Amino acid sequence: MSSTEDSLTAVPATAGAGTGGEASGEAAAETAAETGREAIVRAARRAFTLRPYAEVTMRGIAADAGVSPSLIVKRFGSKEALFNTVVDFRAAADELFAAPRPGLGRHLVLTMVDLRDRLRGDPLLRVVFSLGIEDERTLLRARFREQVTDRLATSLTGPDAQLRAELIAGQLLGLGATLSLHRPDGAGSHAGPERLADLYAPGLQRLIDGA
Amino acid sequence: MSSTEDSLTAVPATAGAGTGGEASGEAAAETAAETGREAIVRAARRAFTLRPYAEVTMRGIAADAGVSPSLIVKRFGSKEALFNTVVDFRAAADELFAAPRPGLGRHLVLTMVDLRDRLRGDPLLRVVFSLGIEDERTLLRARFREQVTDRLATSLTGPDAQLRAELIAGQLLGLGATLSLHRPDGAGSHAGPERLADLYAPGLQRLIDGA
Repeated sequence: MSSTEDSLTAVPATAGAGTGGEASGEAAAETAAETGREAIVRAARRAFTLRPYAEVTMRGIAADAGVSPSLIVKRFGSKEALFNTVVDFRAAADELFAAPRPGLGRHLVLTMVDLRDRLRGDPLLRVVFSLGIEDERTLLRARFREQVTDRLATSLTGPDAQLRAELIAGQLLGLGATLSLHRPDGAGSHAGPERLADLYAPGLQRLIDGA
Repeated sequence: MSSTEDSLTAVPATAGAGTGGEASGEAAAETAAETGREAIVRAARRAFTLRPYAEVTMRGIAADAGVSPSLIVKRFGSKEALFNTVVDFRAAADELFAAPRPGLGRHLVLTMVDLRDRLRGDPLLRVVFSLGIEDERTLLRARFREQVTDRLATSLTGPDAQLRAELIAGQLLGLGATLSLHRPDGAGSHAGPERLADLYAPGLQRLIDGA
């Protein structure tokens, strides 16, 4: 399961599952429905990963998923509801934070570059797109703080752990922003990930260590 | 002239000026037109600074400027054209880069915090909002690269000056992003700017020095 979509997030498959069909026809219909649901979730995740919220359309997601727009509305409700269902940061955080603290700075840089390549988009940056917008997307910001910043803060020792976690999150968002801005063809287009880590990891590591 | 708007950018007052009215009535009309233009530019700059492009409306800018929406269209054309007229990064870059290299890291952090307070918004972050959008706003990204990144790169010595400038720009964008995300009431709401600089400046300074 190393595909683009699976690595983005782990959404529990709640909706549309669990009633249990007796007849095989029902079971087949349920399987088809589940397949449709997964196709929608994959397409939506891809769409919201690749571009800002305002640019994403239900019609585009439907076309990508091979279903009708009305089916998406029936299953998920509004675009906002779909967004909040498919977008979270847990899977990215799992990968980003999967290293012991002494080498975490370098691991963060290399994992960010790798995630961006695999996702063909940034795993965190969309939280920045949501800034200043007062609607259901405020949930996304709360989710980022909880799933990324607060999780990181609890793993840090020393003074100002919360502030340091915020600044580490900032450096990760900044890395994604500058790569998107200056190296849209990928970090390897000019410099390799290792060189990037040589330059960018020490600042991160200093915040991790709390020196 | 220390107001919020003036510090954002220096737009040459080209349109609507320079014909020179003979009659005092003409001169008065010209002065009024110029005042209207300035009010529009100020309101537009404020609007585009405070919120993402998609959320800004011509009607809102007109109401803020005390003019009719049709006057803005007559003077500036489309929303995109207005955006490109009022938004650039030169004035912010002037302030950010106004320190000798040995202390530039700290100066960057303190100036960012100060600019964000004075502007009641981030001076650079809107370039991130424009990512992934393929329209006239691509001009904004080119402008950021030229006015911020390339300008910074030419002032750096040592290897990989361009890449280091990109990463410094990234850390500045990341600082703005994390403050907007975690401390919407201002950097001083929990930690003071000096503490922020203690933590965040060393990573910047390392990239500046090219150590």
